[in-house]
Amino acid sequence: MIPQEIIRSLSISTPSKIVLLVMDGVGGLSMGEGTALEVAHSPYLDTLAAEGTLGLTDPVSPGITPGSGPAHVSLFGYDPIRYQIGRGVLEATGINMRLAPSDVATRGNFASMDADGLITDRRAGRISTEENRKVVEILKKSIREIDGVEVIIQSVKEHRFVVIFRGDDLDGRISGTDPQVTGAVSLDPLPLDPAATRTAAIVKKFIELANQALENERPANTMLLRGFSKLPDIPSMEELFHLNPAAIAAYPMYRGLASLVGMEILQTGETIEDEFETLKQNWADFDFFFLHVKKTDSYGEDGNFPKKVSIIEEVDRMIPGLLELKPDVIAITGDHSTPCLMKGHSWHPNPLLLWSRYVRRDDTTRFTESECTRGGLGRHPAVDLMPLLLANGLKLEKFGA
Amino acid sequence: MIPQEIIRSLSISTPSKIVLLVMDGVGGLSMGEGTALEVAHSPYLDTLAAEGTLGLTDPVSPGITPGSGPAHVSLFGYDPIRYQIGRGVLEATGINMRLAPSDVATRGNFASMDADGLITDRRAGRISTEENRKVVEILKKSIREIDGVEVIIQSVKEHRFVVIFRGDDLDGRISGTDPQVTGAVSLDPLPLDPAATRTAAIVKKFIELANQALENERPANTMLLRGFSKLPDIPSMEELFHLNPAAIAAYPMYRGLASLVGMEILQTGETIEDEFETLKQNWADFDFFFLHVKKTDSYGEDGNFPKKVSIIEEVDRMIPGLLELKPDVIAITGDHSTPCLMKGHSWHPNPLLLWSRYVRRDDTTRFTESECTRGGLGRHPAVDLMPLLLANGLKLEKFGA
Repeated sequence: MIPQEIIRSLSISTPSKIVLLVMDGVGGLSMGEGTALEVAHSPYLDTLAAEGTLGLTDPVSPGITPGSGPAHVSLFGYDPIRYQIGRGVLEATGINMRLAPSDVATRGNFASMDADGLITDRRAGRISTEENRKVVEILKKSIREIDGVEVIIQSVKEHRFVVIFRGDDLDGRISGTDPQVTGAVSLDPLPLDPAATRTAAIVKKFIELANQALENERPANTMLLRGFSKLPDIPSMEELFHLNPAAIAAYPMYRGLASLVGMEILQTGETIEDEFETLKQNWADFDFFFLHVKKTDSYGEDGNFPKKVSIIEEVDRMIPGLLELKPDVIAITGDHSTPCLMKGHSWHPNPLLLWSRYVRRDDTTRFTESECTRGGLGRHPAVDLMPLLLANGLKLEKFGA
Repeated sequence: MIPQEIIRSLSISTPSKIVLLVMDGVGGLSMGEGTALEVAHSPYLDTLAAEGTLGLTDPVSPGITPGSGPAHVSLFGYDPIRYQIGRGVLEATGINMRLAPSDVATRGNFASMDADGLITDRRAGRISTEENRKVVEILKKSIREIDGVEVIIQSVKEHRFVVIFRGDDLDGRISGTDPQVTGAVSLDPLPLDPAATRTAAIVKKFIELANQALENERPANTMLLRGFSKLPDIPSMEELFHLNPAAIAAYPMYRGLASLVGMEILQTGETIEDEFETLKQNWADFDFFFLHVKKTDSYGEDGNFPKKVSIIEEVDRMIPGLLELKPDVIAITGDHSTPCLMKGHSWHPNPLLLWSRYVRRDDTTRFTESECTRGGLGRHPAVDLMPLLLANGLKLEKFGA
């Protein structure tokens, strides 16, 4: 990984246009007849593979299964170890809450507890989103401020919500309160660093006030909090890469991740076709586009192999329209693998397709994991993709004399 | 990359002989019929490829296009990020000026300015080398010392020259004076660190004195300076690898780079044949030879594909003579790629051929980029080549018990 001060000094703004097309979780494992990429009928992707070059990337490091946060942070060209995004921040940005640098955000689960204070259900029976909104309204009315710190509460869905603590000198280094088992009391929020002592005390008071306010509610009469965090102090893609980047993502979490690195978030619809239409409509105004396709991951999580295949085929049909825009550089990859066999994220490297006038062509002819394994790019950390994209867009000057 | 203190502790001196044959910029891109390596008829290189093993190396990091400095620093086994060589130092060592550790060197361009002090030509119409020498003589006579700092000026060629400031407490962290455009005044040399304040003032005075001395000259009546730098504090190859290394390079800059890491610079001629003859003549006296072939890069920069091919074929014909010397280890590679298609350095990885009694043979049979892509060495940073060479020469002891 090239140090930030070097990439910053080498990158220049040019009119060339880069498209980073992420099929979330697209890499997989064979369930007998091959992986989803191998089984998919994808003539346009295959043509790009033949014209371009293939490789494999490790989102974080071999064997490490990443969440969506680090997987995207590294795709965007940032060290995923250095820039860890807390669950609270991820959840808050995912529902379009604007965070200030001094805010501490946390993810909350509504839960049920009995008369002795023992947790009987860590998700309050997965209450409906409507019920969630009702409970959040009760909390909003009862708790607005604690010791000069503003408290902002927002529903996510089902049992999930977000709390933002807004004030001076707050610190996110606080332990979570989820005991991870039922039949136990919830844990106290504890400062993991002396600097977080006051914030932990405010969080504790918040939980006490919330428990009082929800005393008569059932099943959501308490809450478990985890992922206390602040915004990472991360330079924008404009600062670091001198790009003018835009993000197209139907799912909020990915818009949130893109906004953390300063991408302009474009309004788009629910479908893959909508996303590509948004790309076309905004083509003139940006030099870097992150286009995120969620459902390859969703169907991977569901273990629904035929549906995962069909999403790849749907993306394939978008490629001619993409090429009509005359992009200079296209990368097509996943953020992490989500094999249907595992019904979840995995550590397997991402297939990567890189297409530009300046790639060193290899003899690969299909966009599949096995072809990527023998592709000309070899295997490298995902964080190195961004310099490769900039290089292929002729957006990097020479390093050293 | 293995830490320096470890490689230093593991390396031992043995009689085995290593040849690092660098075909500058040899890697390329296809212009239709294949890359220069693919098109070249190179039966001897191909035999070495079949007997040895192949791979790809990244000079600095994926996507980064290196100058000759960092590209060679990494081939010599040093971290190119840690040991950055300034343009001034590179230019000075390239014309065989000996630098002291306290010297500050800078590259200069003669330039033309009008009566208002605006730069009208940043290269003074690319004056002849003869004219350059005449102007440098005028400067030498007028300026020998400023505030106790010795000033040493030397011609390079055309509009280029070098200035060395020699004295105590000098600091190279000074901004360049080239405004990069005509019609503007030249910039003041500014200290980029408070420690460089005095040096910047001396440089400023130098420019004033030079402008006075050149008042009546045309077209070279002023100068632009950039690349102020000191020698990097770099351990020699003897210290670090316990080698007794020699360099054979027809071009001065590569002799300069080799001298920075303590190689003995062998006198040689202009041709590739001369260089191999020099190798033969000095075979008994060293255990490591760096042999540099420049013209693969020059013809890449010119976009002259057939000539690039012919240089590879010329090197190929030298291989039987090289083998007659009975080297223990041969590496053949580039320092960076210079595709004729791009007429310049590029970020594409270097093809690498490693030959010794102890390589793990792969099934590759030609020394080409595509064969290197599927070679047994895989793809790794160029800085890792030196430990591999030492290992194949049985010059590294076991790490740990």
